[in-house]
Amino acid sequence: VLDPGGLVWTVDVQVDGTHFKPAWASWEDIGWRSFMAAASDLAAMGAEPAAALSSLVLAPAIDDAALDALARGQAAASDVVGAPVVGGNLARGTETSITTTLLGRAPVPVLRSGARPGDVVCLAGSVGLAAAGLGLLVQDTTVRNARVQDAHAAACLTAWRRPVARIADGRALAGLAHAAIDVSDGLAHDAEQLAEASGVRIVLDADALRLHLGDDLVAVAARLGRDALDLALNGGEDYALVAASASLLPGFVRIGSVEAHEGGARLLLLTERGPEPLTPRGFDHFLEA
Amino acid sequence: VLDPGGLVWTVDVQVDGTHFKPAWASWEDIGWRSFMAAASDLAAMGAEPAAALSSLVLAPAIDDAALDALARGQAAASDVVGAPVVGGNLARGTETSITTTLLGRAPVPVLRSGARPGDVVCLAGSVGLAAAGLGLLVQDTTVRNARVQDAHAAACLTAWRRPVARIADGRALAGLAHAAIDVSDGLAHDAEQLAEASGVRIVLDADALRLHLGDDLVAVAARLGRDALDLALNGGEDYALVAASASLLPGFVRIGSVEAHEGGARLLLLTERGPEPLTPRGFDHFLEA
Repeated sequence: VLDPGGLVWTVDVQVDGTHFKPAWASWEDIGWRSFMAAASDLAAMGAEPAAALSSLVLAPAIDDAALDALARGQAAASDVVGAPVVGGNLARGTETSITTTLLGRAPVPVLRSGARPGDVVCLAGSVGLAAAGLGLLVQDTTVRNARVQDAHAAACLTAWRRPVARIADGRALAGLAHAAIDVSDGLAHDAEQLAEASGVRIVLDADALRLHLGDDLVAVAARLGRDALDLALNGGEDYALVAASASLLPGFVRIGSVEAHEGGARLLLLTERGPEPLTPRGFDHFLEA
Repeated sequence: VLDPGGLVWTVDVQVDGTHFKPAWASWEDIGWRSFMAAASDLAAMGAEPAAALSSLVLAPAIDDAALDALARGQAAASDVVGAPVVGGNLARGTETSITTTLLGRAPVPVLRSGARPGDVVCLAGSVGLAAAGLGLLVQDTTVRNARVQDAHAAACLTAWRRPVARIADGRALAGLAHAAIDVSDGLAHDAEQLAEASGVRIVLDADALRLHLGDDLVAVAARLGRDALDLALNGGEDYALVAASASLLPGFVRIGSVEAHEGGARLLLLTERGPEPLTPRGFDHFLEA
């Protein structure tokens, strides 16, 4: 947040081998998702995207066709988000990376630091789907290029390849949410970040989360031999929004509550056994998937 | 240039192995010069820098000490430029790169496209020194870490390691210069860019340039077995400013003139043999040095 006029500004980088592998998505997908990852930061601030710059480091393997596809993906995402790519630069390197910087306007910027005891914690968008899609890509090389017959698998692959920054849900935050964050590194990780920034404790409700897992996640989790709730808590790159507010926000679902932090864990998970400390495993994009 | 209010925005990336090598400069130098390279774009627009974001991709070899040094160099440069680093992000990769995005304000932004026939072409800052410094680093491994006894060599090494974006000279452009560009890829290359963007022809005056080469460049060019004028024309990364204006700008020297372009070369060099087409060799940072 740059000034009281509400100019907000963000930068994000996606690195080949760290955030994506060309075998797992088209260059168009890679351009799209790198743009959306950056735009999602603006959504979480309740900002209206205005414009973007793209800075590319291109490995020798990136030929003109790949670069065109990458730029098409960025342009398609920027159309959806409403922030044209107004410039940027190219450099050669040995490892491809895509840096996107976006400017937006937020008359009432939402920060991570305003959650208050008594707030509800609410969620817009799916969590765990992108990690499930990535899990399929890691586990099963045949899924990568094949037409995916299974609609559940297709939904998870699309979640990873074509995430959508929740700009409209972000608009709903302005003036209502006390704090918000986008889920890039996992719901548990990012909720803990919000709790720390706000000096509060967050209790996530396992039953409420289970209600919203959805058939796609449940089916693919079973195929992967993974627990669906665990994927929802620790899977990243869905770019859902988590907010704390006095009452449930329109378009969001309730997934927990904010309490005063009196020492101990910042993050609890409420299950049938009662509340227990929840340690985010973090999401290192590939290895945890 | 983002809007009539005069918000200007730029992004630049420096890649290990393309723009720098850690053997040739400290990480503090590398942080400094990456910041200045980005800030120089604002100087050429006549903009007042406001704030910066830094996005780093760090190879495994970058330990905490190296990262601290890099950040110190960025911070020192940002102090000089007057644009605090207000945020950014870190990612792991196999190849280190430093992306810097800056915002500034320019009530009267100077573009590349406004040069007019009859303008003088003027220059603020040295050209060729950084390339001479790089030439020393490439040619002579002993110069890299040794205390440099030779003041001429030291000046050239400093020009490459610690360039300074010419923000104050940029201020002099606003409202006076018809067009301007910063010299990142070589005076000839960047003057040609300005000529193309403006639809004009630029004639650089070899005698005028020779007057301003300076003892340091002449001495180190001799040591390198290079022509000093050629280094001045084709050496990049000095971040001098080249402007076209109706009369000589304060703080600048006259190095040429703008003519109507009636076909043929966009760029000429005027020598005792008369004007001749000048083909920029370009500056690929290492190989041409």
